[in-house]
Amino acid sequence: MLLDFVLILLAAKIGGELFERMRQPAVLGELLAGLVVGPTLLGLVPNVFDAAVSDAATEAVILFVAELGAIILLFEVGLESNLKDLVKVGRAATIVAIIGIVASVLLGYAASWGFARFGFWSDDPLFHLFVGATFAATSVGITARVLKDMRRLATPEARIILGAAVLDDVGGLLVLALVAGLVTASASGAAFDGLALARTAAIAIGFLVVSFLVGVRVVPPLFARLATMKVRGVVMAFAFLFAFLMAWLADLAGLATIVGAFSAGLILSQAKEQHLIFEGAKPLGDVFIPFFFVVLGAAVNLREVGGDAGRVLVAAGALIVLATIAKLLCGFGVRKGEANRLVVGVGMVPRGEVGLIFVVFGIQHFALPAWVAVTLILVVMLTTVVTPLWLRILFKKIPEPGVERMPGEGRDLVGDRRPGPKFGPGHP
Amino acid sequence: MLLDFVLILLAAKIGGELFERMRQPAVLGELLAGLVVGPTLLGLVPNVFDAAVSDAATEAVILFVAELGAIILLFEVGLESNLKDLVKVGRAATIVAIIGIVASVLLGYAASWGFARFGFWSDDPLFHLFVGATFAATSVGITARVLKDMRRLATPEARIILGAAVLDDVGGLLVLALVAGLVTASASGAAFDGLALARTAAIAIGFLVVSFLVGVRVVPPLFARLATMKVRGVVMAFAFLFAFLMAWLADLAGLATIVGAFSAGLILSQAKEQHLIFEGAKPLGDVFIPFFFVVLGAAVNLREVGGDAGRVLVAAGALIVLATIAKLLCGFGVRKGEANRLVVGVGMVPRGEVGLIFVVFGIQHFALPAWVAVTLILVVMLTTVVTPLWLRILFKKIPEPGVERMPGEGRDLVGDRRPGPKFGPGHP
Repeated sequence: MLLDFVLILLAAKIGGELFERMRQPAVLGELLAGLVVGPTLLGLVPNVFDAAVSDAATEAVILFVAELGAIILLFEVGLESNLKDLVKVGRAATIVAIIGIVASVLLGYAASWGFARFGFWSDDPLFHLFVGATFAATSVGITARVLKDMRRLATPEARIILGAAVLDDVGGLLVLALVAGLVTASASGAAFDGLALARTAAIAIGFLVVSFLVGVRVVPPLFARLATMKVRGVVMAFAFLFAFLMAWLADLAGLATIVGAFSAGLILSQAKEQHLIFEGAKPLGDVFIPFFFVVLGAAVNLREVGGDAGRVLVAAGALIVLATIAKLLCGFGVRKGEANRLVVGVGMVPRGEVGLIFVVFGIQHFALPAWVAVTLILVVMLTTVVTPLWLRILFKKIPEPGVERMPGEGRDLVGDRRPGPKFGPGHP
Repeated sequence: MLLDFVLILLAAKIGGELFERMRQPAVLGELLAGLVVGPTLLGLVPNVFDAAVSDAATEAVILFVAELGAIILLFEVGLESNLKDLVKVGRAATIVAIIGIVASVLLGYAASWGFARFGFWSDDPLFHLFVGATFAATSVGITARVLKDMRRLATPEARIILGAAVLDDVGGLLVLALVAGLVTASASGAAFDGLALARTAAIAIGFLVVSFLVGVRVVPPLFARLATMKVRGVVMAFAFLFAFLMAWLADLAGLATIVGAFSAGLILSQAKEQHLIFEGAKPLGDVFIPFFFVVLGAAVNLREVGGDAGRVLVAAGALIVLATIAKLLCGFGVRKGEANRLVVGVGMVPRGEVGLIFVVFGIQHFALPAWVAVTLILVVMLTTVVTPLWLRILFKKIPEPGVERMPGEGRDLVGDRRPGPKFGPGHP
C-alpha cells in the first residue's frame, strides 16, 4: 500500500514536471502519468473504480486518498475566490458566467442526446445533464497565466474573465449538485420528474446559500478565536476539519462532497486567517491533489477502448467544437466597447480540474465505459491546450495596453519581465 | 469514512487543546480523546487493530492514515535532529544516551521476565525485549518546555539533555528495528538465537548507517536541484516521497516503517532546504499526527481490562519505578562538576510519542491484551506527567544562571517572559 502511494506520487511529480517544462499544464502530465503507471501500460497501479479488483483494502485506501485530493482542491479553489473582488467586476462577469454555464449545459445535453440517437450510449436525461455539466466550469488557471505573461492582467477583459471564472465554479458545482441529487433520487427508485428536479435544485442552492450566509457570519469569528489557542496548528487543523465536515454534510444532503469542500473554502476566504490557511493548505495540496489526477489517469484503460476508437474521435470532435462554441457565446455578455468579446470568449474556453472531477463522478455513478471516459477527458484536455495558443494570436492583433494599468498590478507586471512566455499552472 | 475522519480529528483537537490548557502535553489529551470516542465510551470510532471489526475497508483507511501520522511524526523528529549541534555536545550526551537506553532495555526486559514468572504473560524473550524497547526513547519536548519556562536552556544540563534525547531517538529506533527484525524472523519459523540477533542488528545498523552516509551525500544536492524546478511544491512533494520511500525500504528490510521515515528526516536535516521542508511538513503533521494518537486511544478498550485492573496497577507501578530509575542512572554519564547529575537524570525520564508508537507495534505484532496495552501506555503517560513537577522542585533549589547564557538563547529567553510557567508541548 505504501508502495502504491510512493509510485502514484512519484508518477505525478515526474509527469507534472515534464509538462511544465513543455509549457503545458501540470495536470495533463499527471493524467498521462496515471495512464503510464495504470493498467494501460505498466499495470503498477490498479484502476480503483473497478469493482473486480482483487485487493479491496488497497482500493479503499487509494480511493480515500484521491477523494481527499479532490476535497482539498475544491477547498483551495473556494479559498481563492475572493468574493469582494468579484462584486467589483459585477454585472458583466455575472452575465458572462451565466451564458457560459447555460450554453455549455444545453449544448452538452443536446450532443449527448444526439449521440444516444446514434446508439453511442443509452438515452438517459440524467446522463445527458451530466455530460453538459462536465463542460460547465471554466478553469481559469491557464487563462490567467497567459494574461499575466502577455501583460494583460489589468485589462477589462482579464477582470471580466477572472471574475466570471469564479462564478463559473459556483455554477458548475451547482449543476453537479443537481445531477448528484437526481442520481441519488433515481437510485432510490424515484422517476426523473420536474418535482424531483425542483427539490434537488432547492436542496443544492439551499445548501450553498444557507451554508454561506450562516457560515460567513459564524465561522470567521470562530477562527479568530481559534487563532488565540495554544495547541500547535489549531487553525489549520480546524480549517481542514471544517472542509471535511462540510464535505460530509454535502454528502448527507445528497450532494457531492466537493460541493461542501468548495463551500467551506468560500466561507473561510472571508476569514482574517484566509492567507494563513491558504499557505498551510498548499503542502497538503501538493501531496494529495496530484494523487487524484494520477488515480484518474490510472482508471482509464486505453486497451479497453480498442474498437471504440472511431467513436472516441467522432464524439470528442463534436464535443470539443460545441464546448468551444458554448464559451465563445460568453462574449455576448459584454457590452460593445466594454471589452473585446472574442478575447473574453476564448479566455473562458479552457476546462480543467473541476471537469475532471466530474468525470470521476461519472465513472462512479454512471459506470462510464473506458471510451466514454477517454472522450470526456480528451475534450477537457484539448480545450486547455488550445486556449493559450489562440489567446496569443488574438493578442498579437491587439496593442498592449499602456495607460490602463491598475496601480498594484502594474508594478507586479513590470517586475515579472521573464524572457519567454510561460503558461500552464500547476493547479488553480 | 469521511465521518470517522472528521470525528477522529475533532476529538484530537478538543482533547489536545483541553490538556494544553491544563498545562499537560497535548498528546495525552489526544489519547484520552481516543478512549472517549473509541469502544470504551462512545463507540463512534472502531478499534482498527481488531481483526473482528465488520468494515474492513474503513479499518484499512483509518489504519493507513494513522500510519501516515506515525511516519510524518518520525520524519519531523529526524528533521529536527540537527547532527551538527549534536557533535558539539559530544561525549557527555553520548554516554548519557547510551546509559539511558541500555538501562531502560535491561530493566524493562528484567521486569517483563519477572512478570512472566508470575504468569502475567508468556515467557517470550522477544516480548521482554519489546517491553524494554518501549521505554528506551526519551521524549525531549516536555523537558525542553520546562527548561525554557524556567530559563535554563543555556545551562550545561539542558545542552546535555537535548543532545542525549536526539541520540536516544536513534538508539530507541535501533532497538525497535532489532525487535521488528526478530519478530519477522521468528514469524518465518526461525528460532530466537544469537545468529538471528546478530544478523538483524547488522541489517538495522547497516540500514541506518548506509542510508545516512549515502543519503547525506546524494540527497541534499538532489533537493538543491529540485528547488529550481517549475512545478508547484516539488520540494515538499519529493520530501514526503522520500520519507515514504525510505519507510517502504525499511519495511522491505524487515524494519519498522518509522525507522525509514526517521532516517529520511535525518538525511534531509542536512539539506539546505531543511527549514522549508520542516515548515511545509507542519500542516500535514497537524492533521495526521493527532490522528495517530486518537486511533491508539480508540484501540484500547478499558471495558476489556475489567478483572485485570489489579494486574495493571501492579505492572504499571513496577514498570514506572524501573523506567524512572533507568533514566536517573543517566546522570552518572556526566562528570562531577560538569553538570547536576540529578537534573540530567530527571530531564531524561519522560517517554512520549516514540514509546506510544512502540505500543502500536506491540498491538500489531504481539496481539497485546487490552490490559497490557493500558499498562504500557500508563507508564509512558505517567513519566511524562511527573517530570515537569519534579524538575521545577529541583530548579527551586538551584539558583537561576545569570552569566552563562549563550548569546542567541539569552535574547530569546528574555523575550519570552510570559506571566506564568507553561509546559507540555504539542509534539516534539
